[in-house]
Amino acid sequence: MIHFDIISIQPGLLESPFQHSILKRGIDKGLISIHVEDLRPYGLGKHKQVDDYQYGGGAGMVMMCEPMMNCIEKLQTGKKYDEIIFLTPDGARMDQKMANKLSLSGNLLLICGHYKGLDERIRENVVTLEISIGDYVLSGGELAAAVLVDSIGRLIPGVLNDETSALTDSFQDDLLAPPVYTRPSNFRGWTIPDILLSGDDSKIDNWRYEQQLQRTKERRPDLLENED
Amino acid sequence: MIHFDIISIQPGLLESPFQHSILKRGIDKGLISIHVEDLRPYGLGKHKQVDDYQYGGGAGMVMMCEPMMNCIEKLQTGKKYDEIIFLTPDGARMDQKMANKLSLSGNLLLICGHYKGLDERIRENVVTLEISIGDYVLSGGELAAAVLVDSIGRLIPGVLNDETSALTDSFQDDLLAPPVYTRPSNFRGWTIPDILLSGDDSKIDNWRYEQQLQRTKERRPDLLENED
Repeated sequence: MIHFDIISIQPGLLESPFQHSILKRGIDKGLISIHVEDLRPYGLGKHKQVDDYQYGGGAGMVMMCEPMMNCIEKLQTGKKYDEIIFLTPDGARMDQKMANKLSLSGNLLLICGHYKGLDERIRENVVTLEISIGDYVLSGGELAAAVLVDSIGRLIPGVLNDETSALTDSFQDDLLAPPVYTRPSNFRGWTIPDILLSGDDSKIDNWRYEQQLQRTKERRPDLLENED
Repeated sequence: MIHFDIISIQPGLLESPFQHSILKRGIDKGLISIHVEDLRPYGLGKHKQVDDYQYGGGAGMVMMCEPMMNCIEKLQTGKKYDEIIFLTPDGARMDQKMANKLSLSGNLLLICGHYKGLDERIRENVVTLEISIGDYVLSGGELAAAVLVDSIGRLIPGVLNDETSALTDSFQDDLLAPPVYTRPSNFRGWTIPDILLSGDDSKIDNWRYEQQLQRTKERRPDLLENED
């Protein structure tokens, strides 16, 4: 059982992703639970302000300390988080090993950034882990949070139908997955490699491994240099 | 004006992300249009089958050629795609430069993978660009498609309120963004750097640039080795 709390100023954005697919199944089975906390009610004043201009000038608003701290402290009541995660493009770049490791957590708190970012003081004093899902900028942290929850959620035992399935994914062994084919064997003249029709499991295993190596070498030689 | 067609077996998953935030604003302004095409009606037989066991055995289903080709050809009627993109963990790793480049497109077709993947023959013969949003596996390509659309959509001129804003994001100059702070200057004893209160714009600019360099050096020294 893993629980995610997600702090967002756009909770509606996350409605549909968690109501489908693997995550829905994990939630229905009681293996995953997800709560999205709307930051807005913690905002200040009549307008429930959550962001303000940045000190020193410049384009873009910054998410304020006080609403965020009040929200975090409310969520922390009676609960201990393994990590308080801020999703930000300048965080540690997420990879499969990070997803594997985080999937062993009990409670995770995810903070979705917006505008120009979150006041640095929250990052320095409260956040325990800063994660980037990739080297690009999004309009907010919500999609990054959804990606993180999905990549972790599918690793929880019992969430995927076939438990062997996740182990043969790309990256679990620092190799990309081999090509896959399904019926028919000839589609518009496009055929499949003969070996897959041979019925020889050991030859097929070897072929797949060779394909993985070759594909990784061609597309992502950097993965072959990993040695941990 | 940029148009996205997205082929998915879980179109419902993508409902809420495109109804919020920056993307919603871009759509309302007529700068972005997004259509999600449900693959299921193109499925074969009574059960509208879209996937089948993989040749050579092994866990996980493979998305079939015929439903996908029929769907792609239907969407191509009267329309030319700049790229037919398959979202897959073994694709080229997306970064800000890729998002910048794709934001100049007119029509993009995005194919969301599921199960163990897409029949390799579609990838070889039809797909023009394979993209991975990061080195981790998701339960489907939908969230990856949403991430791609969001990262591209916010770059379309007029979508962000302040056009200078995207230019100061992380990665646009191979540097991470500097720390940001907003009011109050003292929150629970946590203070902000004095320089941000100095009112000296040129000193503040220098400080921010130093912070960018330092942060990039500490967190992502690989970015400093880019020379294009």
